[in-house]
Amino acid sequence: LNAPIGVFDSGVGGLTVLRALRGVLPGADFVYLGDTARLPYGTKSVLTVTRYAEQCAALLVARGICGLVVACNTASAAALTALRTAYPALPVIGVIEPGARAAVACSRSQCIAVLATESTVRQDAYRLAITRLSPAAQVRSRACALFVALAEEGWTEDAIAQAVARRYLDPLFGDAAPGAAVPDTLVLGCTHFPLLAEAVRAVLPDGVQIVDSAQTTALDAAQQLRTRAAAGQGRVQWLATDGAERFARVGGRFFGSALLAAEVEIVNL
Amino acid sequence: LNAPIGVFDSGVGGLTVLRALRGVLPGADFVYLGDTARLPYGTKSVLTVTRYAEQCAALLVARGICGLVVACNTASAAALTALRTAYPALPVIGVIEPGARAAVACSRSQCIAVLATESTVRQDAYRLAITRLSPAAQVRSRACALFVALAEEGWTEDAIAQAVARRYLDPLFGDAAPGAAVPDTLVLGCTHFPLLAEAVRAVLPDGVQIVDSAQTTALDAAQQLRTRAAAGQGRVQWLATDGAERFARVGGRFFGSALLAAEVEIVNL
Repeated sequence: LNAPIGVFDSGVGGLTVLRALRGVLPGADFVYLGDTARLPYGTKSVLTVTRYAEQCAALLVARGICGLVVACNTASAAALTALRTAYPALPVIGVIEPGARAAVACSRSQCIAVLATESTVRQDAYRLAITRLSPAAQVRSRACALFVALAEEGWTEDAIAQAVARRYLDPLFGDAAPGAAVPDTLVLGCTHFPLLAEAVRAVLPDGVQIVDSAQTTALDAAQQLRTRAAAGQGRVQWLATDGAERFARVGGRFFGSALLAAEVEIVNL
Repeated sequence: LNAPIGVFDSGVGGLTVLRALRGVLPGADFVYLGDTARLPYGTKSVLTVTRYAEQCAALLVARGICGLVVACNTASAAALTALRTAYPALPVIGVIEPGARAAVACSRSQCIAVLATESTVRQDAYRLAITRLSPAAQVRSRACALFVALAEEGWTEDAIAQAVARRYLDPLFGDAAPGAAVPDTLVLGCTHFPLLAEAVRAVLPDGVQIVDSAQTTALDAAQQLRTRAAAGQGRVQWLATDGAERFARVGGRFFGSALLAAEVEIVNL
């Protein structure tokens, strides 16, 4: 009853998910792994991302976790099935299905826009997950490579962020033929993107709702893991594959409170 | 006399250097390795970049190269000494020292600005190389993380690129106290950055010269390797650690002519 919940991401983006998890599971302990030596995952092939995800999972399983949250959209899209096959007794929770569920629940028109990484878009991961829940739904996806760099640089709320958001969003919302469906819901399909929510909001048409999967994923995890992880003390153990100082400095922005480099253990994968 | 010259980079940025090398050594054969499974190097620790560079070099040495060009500023800053120690009989050429030499030769004021990656700036690599050549020189460096993303996205010549360039450059050129030295030379200290040269030029004060190390590095390599690599046929063998399709698609922009995904061999490091 006091095994930690394992959470991994390519880097610090998954800290937005960890933050939501701690909100709904305040008694649980966590071990968070950021694969900072090989980030980002979003521009890499499915084969390579799957191999990296399997290595992250194996390391966390060796630490005795009671459940695994894949807090990375790209890794969820590529490797969730492989991880569930590899660890049939372990609850494995991804972020795509919860994000798709939130979008379907939120949308009246069932026309949904998705911003994600190159890899997630190439795999058509959100379209598949959304149309599994709502077969008639229309999904328009767009890869937004610059959002990751803007979020890591901390340039999230100014004219440059808005100009970048406008360039990515205009083709999703601007080209509707008369009578065509227009998205009324926008999924932030990468854990870096919630930091850009204000810039995105500033250029979105009125009435479009923004959905991110952090909160829905956290509720899923709570449902599946509450009895397994109830007796912890709310602690987080920090692991990264490179750069404790940078992990703490950039990660603090995503986690919403300061992290200490001295508390980050560097591990080899 | 027909062994190829090995060239490596974290990804496709080094293709700007390969292009210059082919210009000065048209008869030589090359084997180019992009470590695309682990790019970028510029945000990672010296220890990790050194390990990656050693693995890249070992793979190329096993292919029988007659010389090694480290076509990546971050890897040159971190690992050049380690590589020269590991392969004492092999000419190993980096891009920082040639870039520093070009800047010192170009600058009248010996006040030099450098744009580079986070890692290259943290290591103070250009300041050390420049002041070794010109002890009284002043060097102002700035890490430009977004330039890499802009170059890979192909957004290199428009209003967003200029706004980003302005934000990075203003602190280097805008804050001179009366009588203080102002840089008259700007080093593009990352192989991605030559693609942003037009946007940088548009926001630079008049009279500031832009220097990149591709051409100077190529001339260095020609001098050291001409007799070893003279009898080739101008061929390039393409290696990458991930994503042949993306390597060809994004790499073409850096190489200046189309690359074929089918000709890219995927290797494991």
